[in-house]
Amino acid sequence: MTIYNFSAGPAVLPKPVLEKAQAEFLDYQGSGMSVMELSHRSSLFDAIIKDAEALLRELMGIPDNYKVLFLQGGASLQFSMVPLNLAQGKKALYVNTGIWSKKAISAAKAFKSIDVEVIASSEDANFTYIPEITEDMIDQDAAYLHITTNNTIVGTAYQEIPKAGNVPIVADMSSNILANDYQVADFGIIYAGAQKNIGPAGLTVVIIREDLIGLCPVAEPMLDYQIQADNNSLYNTPPTFAIYIAKLVFEWLKEQGGVAAILKKDQEKATLLYDALAKSSLFTSPVRADSRSLTNIPFVTGDADLDKKFNAEALAAGFENLKGHRLVGGMRASLYNAFPKQGVVDLIAFMEKFEKENGGA
Amino acid sequence: MTIYNFSAGPAVLPKPVLEKAQAEFLDYQGSGMSVMELSHRSSLFDAIIKDAEALLRELMGIPDNYKVLFLQGGASLQFSMVPLNLAQGKKALYVNTGIWSKKAISAAKAFKSIDVEVIASSEDANFTYIPEITEDMIDQDAAYLHITTNNTIVGTAYQEIPKAGNVPIVADMSSNILANDYQVADFGIIYAGAQKNIGPAGLTVVIIREDLIGLCPVAEPMLDYQIQADNNSLYNTPPTFAIYIAKLVFEWLKEQGGVAAILKKDQEKATLLYDALAKSSLFTSPVRADSRSLTNIPFVTGDADLDKKFNAEALAAGFENLKGHRLVGGMRASLYNAFPKQGVVDLIAFMEKFEKENGGA
Repeated sequence: MTIYNFSAGPAVLPKPVLEKAQAEFLDYQGSGMSVMELSHRSSLFDAIIKDAEALLRELMGIPDNYKVLFLQGGASLQFSMVPLNLAQGKKALYVNTGIWSKKAISAAKAFKSIDVEVIASSEDANFTYIPEITEDMIDQDAAYLHITTNNTIVGTAYQEIPKAGNVPIVADMSSNILANDYQVADFGIIYAGAQKNIGPAGLTVVIIREDLIGLCPVAEPMLDYQIQADNNSLYNTPPTFAIYIAKLVFEWLKEQGGVAAILKKDQEKATLLYDALAKSSLFTSPVRADSRSLTNIPFVTGDADLDKKFNAEALAAGFENLKGHRLVGGMRASLYNAFPKQGVVDLIAFMEKFEKENGGA
Repeated sequence: MTIYNFSAGPAVLPKPVLEKAQAEFLDYQGSGMSVMELSHRSSLFDAIIKDAEALLRELMGIPDNYKVLFLQGGASLQFSMVPLNLAQGKKALYVNTGIWSKKAISAAKAFKSIDVEVIASSEDANFTYIPEITEDMIDQDAAYLHITTNNTIVGTAYQEIPKAGNVPIVADMSSNILANDYQVADFGIIYAGAQKNIGPAGLTVVIIREDLIGLCPVAEPMLDYQIQADNNSLYNTPPTFAIYIAKLVFEWLKEQGGVAAILKKDQEKATLLYDALAKSSLFTSPVRADSRSLTNIPFVTGDADLDKKFNAEALAAGFENLKGHRLVGGMRASLYNAFPKQGVVDLIAFMEKFEKENGGA
């Protein structure tokens, strides 16, 4: 049975990447050592981390005045690091587009010296759309405007990045980094947990404009962008194996034709599923048409028991991790870069069969 | 040519562990998925993290009133988390036994509300010994006494854990966890970066007595032991693959006979090398005899040029990462649990040959 892994993260990785890592797992480049056994100060690892950065810069077109950091702690640690490094004694603006936005807002509010303002929210409609942000909503004295570019759980994404004047936009891009046509120069900081489009869990990529480094005193050295940047992500031992897998993913992505080419494939995959949902008399997308994510596509029957039946039968047929997030129910197909088109085609066929068997048209 | 990896960390891993991980790298237990592709909320990963904890509890004899946390950020993040969680508005005591102790002290001093006192130091003799700590040196109002049980760079280790009365001892055990006969009950907190005796870089193990959780308010959720403990290390996505490798290492260690059996082997390996150093007329140990580490053994010729020559020839002969830390020079053999005895035997033969060729007896 073919297994298709729709997990929202940790998620499916490109098979050629896994095969390459497996082949050299015990002996990296004739060194007689596994990548996991390499000193982080060795020339072999130095080449890995530098290649990873160079590839990511090329893939995303990262301007020279941005630093790339390979950190730990996931997006959740960035929820604290961003306000701590940028907004002590200042105002910080947030857009609330779902559970992860709320966690970011809550982490910022935990700092007494920071004035957190939520300038827009789609909570009134269960986060099923991205609210419109116009420049006149942005207090130009704010330290930053924080957005979640793609909302993994509810399946929304910004189609365009708001204009914020001189206020830097800080983006949690965990679930659609390397799967969008955003421009890095439109952001002050981009951060992303690796476990969706980059590599294994335990690595966090931070892309930060140099003028945003060193703005506030930070007591914890590991949480200080200045210290991490000054040490090129080697202030202490970084997650070496995760960085190596990320490098292989970046190489694979480049071989696929880069971000523009993979985005075209992502759009094809998403369009197939959204069109099937539009055609279906059983399954629907709960997300407003102008706000839909390419990478995370929730759908429902409108009947919790039927959703449950579908999830059980889908799992038995090899469609793994299709069950929607516990907070929203239903189903969710996460179609990251490494997810094969055939998996979408097969899922749609399975949905059509289920629909016929369960009273659909 | 056989490669022996003397790296201080990331370090050599047991070959059977690497072979097992390689064999199931693309298909974990017939799931059709790599461990890296498993959702951290899946039943397969749930079994991995629970098994890892149960094995570590068994290996170290961890009492029931201690929590085991699988975190990120290395020992360096613990340098901040420990004072933040335990000592706000209080006094914290430290013993300074080397570079890592100094980093821990410096991280604690960065918090204005904490009164940091260094109660003993061996800096007067380049950290070549462990200072004696007696109970009358411990202010019983202190939040904790922090020690570094094994000093990776200078090659010293506590042979016995000090008595501190009712003050909990917090130990950075990064470089000799699972390679000692300490009792967990003698500590309040034990923490260790994984990349020496546990597994890959990017995982930090924290063993914490329950009454030390939740003592101080912590603004950053990821840095709050209470939140991490309440969520069983799953507050956000943990470093899943690193935890899986740690589980395999723990299984391997159990197969070796557990900590007592591996400690006996560690002692045999270390004794071989220390005896060779005692016998040599060229190489010496700079560390006082009563303070020597089993896991990190520095040695010198006393002549920087000769050290350099030795390091170059050793590297060419397949002895990797023998060069001493840049702060102390000379050579250093890190002999963690996974390091094979034959590597020590071969190193000693190589040292004897070098000694003959370079004017030794």
